[in-house]
Amino acid sequence: MDTLTLIKVGGKIVEDPAALSSLLDDFCSLPGRKLLVHGGGRSATALATRLGIETRMIGGRRVTDEEMLRVVTMVYGGLVNKNIVAQLQARGANALGLTGADMGVMRSRKRPVTAEGVDYGYVGDVERVDAGLLAGLIGRGVVPVMAPLTHDGSGHLLNTNADTIAGETAKALAPHFDVTLVFCFEKAGVLRDEADEESVIPHIDAESFAHLREEGIVSGGMIPKLENAFAALREGVRRVVITRASAIANAGAGTIVEL
Amino acid sequence: MDTLTLIKVGGKIVEDPAALSSLLDDFCSLPGRKLLVHGGGRSATALATRLGIETRMIGGRRVTDEEMLRVVTMVYGGLVNKNIVAQLQARGANALGLTGADMGVMRSRKRPVTAEGVDYGYVGDVERVDAGLLAGLIGRGVVPVMAPLTHDGSGHLLNTNADTIAGETAKALAPHFDVTLVFCFEKAGVLRDEADEESVIPHIDAESFAHLREEGIVSGGMIPKLENAFAALREGVRRVVITRASAIANAGAGTIVEL
Repeated sequence: MDTLTLIKVGGKIVEDPAALSSLLDDFCSLPGRKLLVHGGGRSATALATRLGIETRMIGGRRVTDEEMLRVVTMVYGGLVNKNIVAQLQARGANALGLTGADMGVMRSRKRPVTAEGVDYGYVGDVERVDAGLLAGLIGRGVVPVMAPLTHDGSGHLLNTNADTIAGETAKALAPHFDVTLVFCFEKAGVLRDEADEESVIPHIDAESFAHLREEGIVSGGMIPKLENAFAALREGVRRVVITRASAIANAGAGTIVEL
Repeated sequence: MDTLTLIKVGGKIVEDPAALSSLLDDFCSLPGRKLLVHGGGRSATALATRLGIETRMIGGRRVTDEEMLRVVTMVYGGLVNKNIVAQLQARGANALGLTGADMGVMRSRKRPVTAEGVDYGYVGDVERVDAGLLAGLIGRGVVPVMAPLTHDGSGHLLNTNADTIAGETAKALAPHFDVTLVFCFEKAGVLRDEADEESVIPHIDAESFAHLREEGIVSGGMIPKLENAFAALREGVRRVVITRASAIANAGAGTIVEL
């Protein structure tokens, strides 16, 4: 089974030309099959501001009304995605930019208004991933570049969390490849001491995760991140890595999560 | 050999939701393999205006400076392309949105400054089409939706005429399929009398084209259009149809151009 490295990078990297260029160099140097999932939220906010559209966030999630959906479709699906594709092509990687609507790769359901009355608007929760054609293309050397957009199967695009897209894609490709899922992160990995960048925990498994949690070493937003990582591992993903974008080519850097 | 119908529609259609919906219904009703090439210039002009970016046209061609390239990348590659993809998926067509950068389908060269000193900016003249992966996907039921953008192989996207993209794609797919190339047009076809919509010339071949031209019945912008059609036919495209967008499902409507 071929190896596949699935890298998820956030908006900060993709919006900084020098950081993006360096990331794409490192990405292309990785052995085996590759797939990139990108964010782009800050560019979307910037365009929205220029257009006089207000950006509303609730709990770190963008509220996506009809106008904001147009903005994220332009920025994620067009500007960010196609520029990454062109830059990967220039590096000899046969990139193919995708949203979840393309080849019906990822279908989602518009998130219902929450019990607390919060309406995120055109935001999608992933329902179904169809990775058959995608796996075939990857096997023929194609490097998919996925934007954080999905579709509902009824003609509507939906804004979708890039971490979720990465995790769902990794799981769907696990029957076809030996998948390593890499979440690029603003820190060097999962830290034993938040204030000490040298305190990266190099390896976490289900047992050590339980201990780290009990001891309060892992807390806050890192808990759902790791829970998602274990969910992916239980569905066949080989390993999950949490590391800095600048360290993706450095095997063994960051925190490696395995069952 | 499977038949493939390649439809090129301009910006007017894709920007009118009712006309687009009707076009996509008709497109999906066509038998055989299908591919759609779209424009979107008016949406790009509208977004540019909202962003305070001036739109400059020379001889009907958009001058594409760096800011305008960002606009067309957002509008053609994102907004227009991905909405068409989502709407085709809703109709059961397994659409895949592409620019020329995706899978390296179409490489172009930045147009040099003309002898008259006209600089169109980031505008591409097509150099190379690689339709191998595309043909394989079409054979597996995928419906490509192509935006009028290409890349130069050095990391830059280039704004590219949608008619050219349609013609070049048709030629590149001719070894794989029995290709009909349909240019949607604001009139019912090539007219014998510009003022009379009933005067459609149903069939033009190389011989009748020479006569029509001598007699001055075909003139102006229609001459390069037909010359391009014959160029495509000489490279293996089976037929070229010039018709109204509303008539694509109506076999025999419009003007059929064959060698």
